[in-house]
Amino acid sequence: MLPNILRLTKNEKILRLVSKRFVSAVSDSQNGLAYREDFSTRHIGVNPKDETEMLKLLNLKSLEELVDKTVPKNIRLNRDLNLSEPLTEQEMLEYARQIASENQVYRSFIGLGYHNCHMPPVILRNIFENPGWVTQYTPYQAELSQGRLESLLNFQTMVCDLTGLEIANASLLDEATAAAEAMTLCARNNKRKKFLVSDRVHPQTVDLVKTRAEPLGIEVRVENLSQMKFDSKDVTGFLFQYPDTDGSLLDLESVIKRAKDNGTVPVAATDLLSLCLLKSPKEVGAEIALGNAQRFGVPLGFGGPHAAFFACTDKFKRDMPGRIIGVSRDSNGKPAMRLTLQTREQHIRQDKATSNICTAQALLANISAFYAVYHGPEGLRKKANHAHLHTLVLAEGLKNSNNQILNENFFDTIKIKPSLSVLEIKKRAEYKKINLRYFEDGQHIGVSLDDTVTSQDLNDLLEIFGSNENFDQVVRRTNLAELKHNLNSNENQFKRESKYLQHPVFNSYHSEALLVRYMKILENKDVSLVHSMIPLGSCTMKLNSTTELIPCSWKEFGSIHPFVPSSQVKGYYKMFDELAKDLCEITGYDKISFQPNSGAQGEYAGLRAIMQYLKANGKGDRRVCLIPTSAHGTNPASAAMAGMKIHKVNVLKSGAIDMNHLSELIKKYQNNLACAMVTYPSTFGVFESRIVEVCQLIHENGGQVYLDGANLNAQVGLCRPGDYGSDVSHLNLHKTFCIPHGGGGPGMGPIGVKAHLAPYLPSHPLVDIEGVQRSDSFGSCSAAPFGSSSILPISWAYIKMMGNRGLQKATKVAILSSNYMMKRLEKHYSINYVGDEGFSAHEFIMIADFKASANVEATDIAKRLQDYGFHSPTVSWPVHGALMVEPTESESKEELDRMCDALISIREEIRKIERGEWDRNNNPLKNAPHTQEICVSSNWDRPYSRETAAYPISYIKPESKMWPTCGRVDDSYGDKNLVVKRK
Amino acid sequence: MLPNILRLTKNEKILRLVSKRFVSAVSDSQNGLAYREDFSTRHIGVNPKDETEMLKLLNLKSLEELVDKTVPKNIRLNRDLNLSEPLTEQEMLEYARQIASENQVYRSFIGLGYHNCHMPPVILRNIFENPGWVTQYTPYQAELSQGRLESLLNFQTMVCDLTGLEIANASLLDEATAAAEAMTLCARNNKRKKFLVSDRVHPQTVDLVKTRAEPLGIEVRVENLSQMKFDSKDVTGFLFQYPDTDGSLLDLESVIKRAKDNGTVPVAATDLLSLCLLKSPKEVGAEIALGNAQRFGVPLGFGGPHAAFFACTDKFKRDMPGRIIGVSRDSNGKPAMRLTLQTREQHIRQDKATSNICTAQALLANISAFYAVYHGPEGLRKKANHAHLHTLVLAEGLKNSNNQILNENFFDTIKIKPSLSVLEIKKRAEYKKINLRYFEDGQHIGVSLDDTVTSQDLNDLLEIFGSNENFDQVVRRTNLAELKHNLNSNENQFKRESKYLQHPVFNSYHSEALLVRYMKILENKDVSLVHSMIPLGSCTMKLNSTTELIPCSWKEFGSIHPFVPSSQVKGYYKMFDELAKDLCEITGYDKISFQPNSGAQGEYAGLRAIMQYLKANGKGDRRVCLIPTSAHGTNPASAAMAGMKIHKVNVLKSGAIDMNHLSELIKKYQNNLACAMVTYPSTFGVFESRIVEVCQLIHENGGQVYLDGANLNAQVGLCRPGDYGSDVSHLNLHKTFCIPHGGGGPGMGPIGVKAHLAPYLPSHPLVDIEGVQRSDSFGSCSAAPFGSSSILPISWAYIKMMGNRGLQKATKVAILSSNYMMKRLEKHYSINYVGDEGFSAHEFIMIADFKASANVEATDIAKRLQDYGFHSPTVSWPVHGALMVEPTESESKEELDRMCDALISIREEIRKIERGEWDRNNNPLKNAPHTQEICVSSNWDRPYSRETAAYPISYIKPESKMWPTCGRVDDSYGDKNLVVKRK
Repeated sequence: MLPNILRLTKNEKILRLVSKRFVSAVSDSQNGLAYREDFSTRHIGVNPKDETEMLKLLNLKSLEELVDKTVPKNIRLNRDLNLSEPLTEQEMLEYARQIASENQVYRSFIGLGYHNCHMPPVILRNIFENPGWVTQYTPYQAELSQGRLESLLNFQTMVCDLTGLEIANASLLDEATAAAEAMTLCARNNKRKKFLVSDRVHPQTVDLVKTRAEPLGIEVRVENLSQMKFDSKDVTGFLFQYPDTDGSLLDLESVIKRAKDNGTVPVAATDLLSLCLLKSPKEVGAEIALGNAQRFGVPLGFGGPHAAFFACTDKFKRDMPGRIIGVSRDSNGKPAMRLTLQTREQHIRQDKATSNICTAQALLANISAFYAVYHGPEGLRKKANHAHLHTLVLAEGLKNSNNQILNENFFDTIKIKPSLSVLEIKKRAEYKKINLRYFEDGQHIGVSLDDTVTSQDLNDLLEIFGSNENFDQVVRRTNLAELKHNLNSNENQFKRESKYLQHPVFNSYHSEALLVRYMKILENKDVSLVHSMIPLGSCTMKLNSTTELIPCSWKEFGSIHPFVPSSQVKGYYKMFDELAKDLCEITGYDKISFQPNSGAQGEYAGLRAIMQYLKANGKGDRRVCLIPTSAHGTNPASAAMAGMKIHKVNVLKSGAIDMNHLSELIKKYQNNLACAMVTYPSTFGVFESRIVEVCQLIHENGGQVYLDGANLNAQVGLCRPGDYGSDVSHLNLHKTFCIPHGGGGPGMGPIGVKAHLAPYLPSHPLVDIEGVQRSDSFGSCSAAPFGSSSILPISWAYIKMMGNRGLQKATKVAILSSNYMMKRLEKHYSINYVGDEGFSAHEFIMIADFKASANVEATDIAKRLQDYGFHSPTVSWPVHGALMVEPTESESKEELDRMCDALISIREEIRKIERGEWDRNNNPLKNAPHTQEICVSSNWDRPYSRETAAYPISYIKPESKMWPTCGRVDDSYGDKNLVVKRK
Repeated sequence: MLPNILRLTKNEKILRLVSKRFVSAVSDSQNGLAYREDFSTRHIGVNPKDETEMLKLLNLKSLEELVDKTVPKNIRLNRDLNLSEPLTEQEMLEYARQIASENQVYRSFIGLGYHNCHMPPVILRNIFENPGWVTQYTPYQAELSQGRLESLLNFQTMVCDLTGLEIANASLLDEATAAAEAMTLCARNNKRKKFLVSDRVHPQTVDLVKTRAEPLGIEVRVENLSQMKFDSKDVTGFLFQYPDTDGSLLDLESVIKRAKDNGTVPVAATDLLSLCLLKSPKEVGAEIALGNAQRFGVPLGFGGPHAAFFACTDKFKRDMPGRIIGVSRDSNGKPAMRLTLQTREQHIRQDKATSNICTAQALLANISAFYAVYHGPEGLRKKANHAHLHTLVLAEGLKNSNNQILNENFFDTIKIKPSLSVLEIKKRAEYKKINLRYFEDGQHIGVSLDDTVTSQDLNDLLEIFGSNENFDQVVRRTNLAELKHNLNSNENQFKRESKYLQHPVFNSYHSEALLVRYMKILENKDVSLVHSMIPLGSCTMKLNSTTELIPCSWKEFGSIHPFVPSSQVKGYYKMFDELAKDLCEITGYDKISFQPNSGAQGEYAGLRAIMQYLKANGKGDRRVCLIPTSAHGTNPASAAMAGMKIHKVNVLKSGAIDMNHLSELIKKYQNNLACAMVTYPSTFGVFESRIVEVCQLIHENGGQVYLDGANLNAQVGLCRPGDYGSDVSHLNLHKTFCIPHGGGGPGMGPIGVKAHLAPYLPSHPLVDIEGVQRSDSFGSCSAAPFGSSSILPISWAYIKMMGNRGLQKATKVAILSSNYMMKRLEKHYSINYVGDEGFSAHEFIMIADFKASANVEATDIAKRLQDYGFHSPTVSWPVHGALMVEPTESESKEELDRMCDALISIREEIRKIERGEWDRNNNPLKNAPHTQEICVSSNWDRPYSRETAAYPISYIKPESKMWPTCGRVDDSYGDKNLVVKRK
């Protein structure tokens, strides 16, 4: 169990136990003999020589002086972080192995949406462990992302095919949140406020849907399908599980007909593998289908990350939550892919947003897509049949030994009323290291098989349930072909007749050589951190070190079902505990919840916790949430979802909050003030000096402070939100704490809270969360109790290897690098917002709008940067027409200089237009990016040279040039002509 | 211990035990319910539909018909191979884990040239586990290999810097063979026949040098350095270990002076890490330096693979063995790298060869080079100091507890006369799971530390030797700075003052982001199997599946010193045993030796075994070896090194052995016939029908048959050398059995022999080889008893997953693919040699000489293929002016067609020249390959289009084009102007 972190006071000296060997190793370095490699020098790209030169340009003597001039004195920590001494990479791996060995890997037949599967080693090594795929950014710059866009289009095609529906997105966070998104989609669509949920839906989904519905005023009723009534015509949609949580296939015809007749949207939560044998959701009448793609090759990972899928009929396409990949055309008129109907930070429509989702599980969606590409329709069908046939045999065997099977028709899961006592079965299963699903009623047991089960597994299961037969014996006496509930039987009403995955991509790459080459062609189309810096403002792309990622492949972390007993995951709990302690120490909070799967989910959870706290203290009517106009779009979106009333606080030209306006608003809403959401350093990349004052003002007026943790990278070791007045923050582990972006997910957005909010953190319907009563909590925000558990070792390892000194240094260098670039660029671009002493925090905003003088917009600069080999900084957010640059501490001065040189060179190009040397409409910026095809073409008709197009600066060399693989993609064409699958 | 394979008769049914779980898994597939993924369908690229189409083109009904028409009836096996049922990938991994767990990973402080070290995870994942590096071919096509050539040049630069010598090669197989190469280099150079070896050289080196010297008539004397006499002026060279095998640094000044004064070449076997603190070999007077680069980041691997290095003064540069990378210039006059002064198959000068080395340890050399790049001179010096300072402290502690230290000056190794009994120390060390070096005299113990030791290790060592102090206590009472034998002390005569690794490449990539990007830039310059087929005739480049490679990273295989007691390597022995059994079953031999590290080493070992056998049977005067003129160049080279007299047998125009000439020669040398070396199928890619007759003829005349196993891929499951008359073969595991090429090594060349030769297989001076008496054996051929043990799991896994059916199918498809390509190409190129029924074996030779008609040579076609995205087939071997194509079973029909289309398209291009449409000297073939720089240049002045240059065929597309990164490299310029390091 997680120890009670609340017991530790803020000032208490926390004894950080690492095993004796590591203590001994650390002590080595103190006797002066030992050379212990300092990981922080591998992580931080700026070496001492670079640092000196960079400080010199800034006219500073030391990093400390920079910090003094940047971070307000009244919030400085002024002490070391109380973390354990940094481990070397080898020591960390050894220690992680120890911790991993404290997890016990049982065979889990629990089901509930999570299943054993094999990730093909060729995918493991070439995707999951390959930085070329793992360190890609979200494909906002489509021309440098055609590889993963193709793979995600494969994912969507696969989902469309298997569900039978026309439109699919490129993944959501998990099945439960997908179901909640379906609910709100229905409500948006038909404006009704009642949502029915079958009582045979997975309990974690039910819980989350209820949680989400409450603040939106949607009434959720959990009912038996047969009893559902729709004729009052006020039911927006109804959710059923197909096959249901007990494993049963029920006749849905009548209920779906009744629903549709009354304008209610039928929503199926379903399972991709089962759909290889079952009629598609579309065929049974669903208009929305969703679920978890995990069993297509992704490890269980004690809950995640996995890619959830979401598909719908054509009529809902413009309401689809999450990211959709679409085929559009490029400037040369050729097909090219892009994010379409975009839901992203910049596109989150503030409090008008329909969803706060702005990430995906891209890496995992890619894995599932490649899994389908590798196995093809036939392989998948065989796998589905493997699971199904074994389940048929198991059921026969169990029946014969007086167990009662409650399912008439099923795919791979059965519910059993055992002849032996449940206690006896538990004992036997425990002895065999097998996990089953024990229903709450204490009477029933669920068994869910999968495509990896062996006859040995079946023998064990039969024995556990008291069968005298073994698997082979049951097989011999059973004529499977005669069983009507065999899904291969023509008599079976659920049998699938329709084809799927007929596109060549699912029928071409079935040998390893072919698959590897296909993956490599896609990989090499895309820019990732293995090529160059990706200085996305507000979206740190720092080093994701190999060593941090290594434990994620270990079966002790990967092969664990999220709902196993806590006794099997002592290692995980130990790691959560250590990571939570470290994050508390870093942020000044008292408790961490690891449940939220993304920053936006963290916002939502934090705001809901605030609301619960207020309610518990008799202030349930306080619903006003103040948010600066400069806030990240998810802030108001999350607040709206949490049922708050949003009021916008103006910001000054400097980017700082307009204190007068704030005071005004506070006064106006004094009795209804729930909270303020602030981002710190601000979204403009500035440490505002009055943050303490802001927090005090809110508190004095009965509100809570939600501090958006997006910019924590500028604070670690220098100041702590928990110290200067914040009550809760989410921590984007995928940014500050090194979880890679994976082409747009997975992410993790745990939240830290002060002690008073701790009781109101997320709970989970199936797993007890230490220190949280379900009755106090607002409910759950993820399907799994600890979110994407299996990537938490990354952040844990990062902190363990960096230690206090390393982390502090990283923060300082991140600030240094930002200021260095700003200094180099300020002669060429105007910088809009800086702090009182003229310095930025870890990022800065440069105006990139030359529309008037040269007909050049920020986008043109972003696209031209591709010709220079760079992924653009954040475009037009938070300031329209600007670029926001966040270089991070992991980049070397040389790389910073390369990027500065590129931006300066582009500015010179703009001057050529301004001077009339280049045409305003036909120039390298307007025509950017330039593809290889154009540059090699015999028909070069541009008024500038091929070399200017392709090698605009000396360091871009033919032998290492990274080419955009399509011309500029036409956004509006793609939005107008929506194509979301391969044709 | 290895069970006695000889006890098993050929026909005995071998019970193949795999664990119960796997038996159960296999039985699953037999009840028809289970879907067990068939690995062979992942390995074999031709699917059933392709197969049908390919057979149709060949006018054949079945694969069986093809085999009937290709493989002579009288050698067909006509039964299944007796192998275990194939495991799935997951089952194999699980089984391999079981086996691995039977190895015990002790801490080894044995030394003897093998040391613990840490491979940085960033190198592990991005090089060692990255197919982009692992599946590269030897860089014969320089223009597609500039990435790894640069890395290997880094390796050479590193070796030159640390040894102080001018010339280095890009790796040999191991330290012992490198020493033997040094001996022969000396002898070639000064024509003397006596070689002195210090008695303080590692024993495995001494043994191997003696073994190699014997048949060459070189007298080797092992002497104490102080007693060495050179004044008779007949000593060719002398070998000393620096630091010596006991760890001591001895004053070498006088002995080296005496040697040089008398024309004797001083040769240092040395250690790269020590050279970071020690005067370089050059500075102490050596003219040759060699050793093992293992401790620069390569796992111990129970003996290998590691890269040995070899450096010499400028005067020996043209005698250098192995592969040297040199800087030359390309067709555009820019610097470009290539293999220089080439030693390769085609360059082996038959019986005039000075060495039979034709491979390297490229992958491992790259790892060591990147290790130096990542750590830089400072990091390496710190590591060296870590090892040294800990050793100083250990010595102080041991002295204080009445142990006697026999070394006056040392780096990281000491020799101890312990105060406790050796038996007691053994017991204590065993208890702590520590391995030490126990000298043969039973009186002394060696301890060798390294840069990974911790204070815990030191505490344990002190305790083992009976010290009352722990490490910290010794440190506290010792003033290291005062110790004269501290290598940091100015008073220490061995202290290094000269700098090393000053080139920017060793001082630029010290953060992980920087290193990853450098590695990626290099990787992306090179073609490997992740891009396209590499159909090298005689050098199979088949799939190296991820799953096969996975166990190679496990510490249970990697972290084991080659000289640990056999009780610690039960897993390894089990795997060797299983692999040996399988290989015996496949080849028809009775016993396998895993010692030879390459095919050429295998040839040598096999021929030496024959000679020992003859000698033991009173036929020691039989020394004649008959070799067809078509033989691979290493055949005569190895025979010459084995002391044989080579006579060439003519071949007919069909490629078959001229039986008349053979009979003639046999008659002529009847009483002196030792053996014949034949390649089967022949090097011309044909199954000769009279092979049985050839073998009989040799046997009838008292000779043995050595069958070159290079082409075993055409035989597996169809026929067995051991059945049709061969006595011994080497098996190129890196070809037929899936060990990847790694850019030119590692390889493995175990030999299989019939029972009568088994007693004469390689022995080892330090490790008992089961079934081999040292007195019978010819000696050793590798430094480690089982060669490159840690890559043997690859071949083991391949056989385990393919099984009888998979392997047979692979062979047939390899033959099918060759014939399919031949059929498609025969209308365009003349095919020279086919079998009696008009079919080739697994490879074929096409004439590519159009000099007369179009001024086009085979090389032009090879270079033009690069523009088509392909690595050329083997050029001008074994037939000058031809290409030899070996497609292997792993390629799909689609890929075979792509290559055929390319070759046909090139033939069309040649016709354009023939017809006068294109200039004979200025055309796409003569100018090939075309770089991106040329194709994008504004100054295009070629008489054909850019598109013709860059995208000569429809499937070469701008978005996935693989560009050669330099123009055609000038071979002769590079040979004339030798540059072997970075400037």
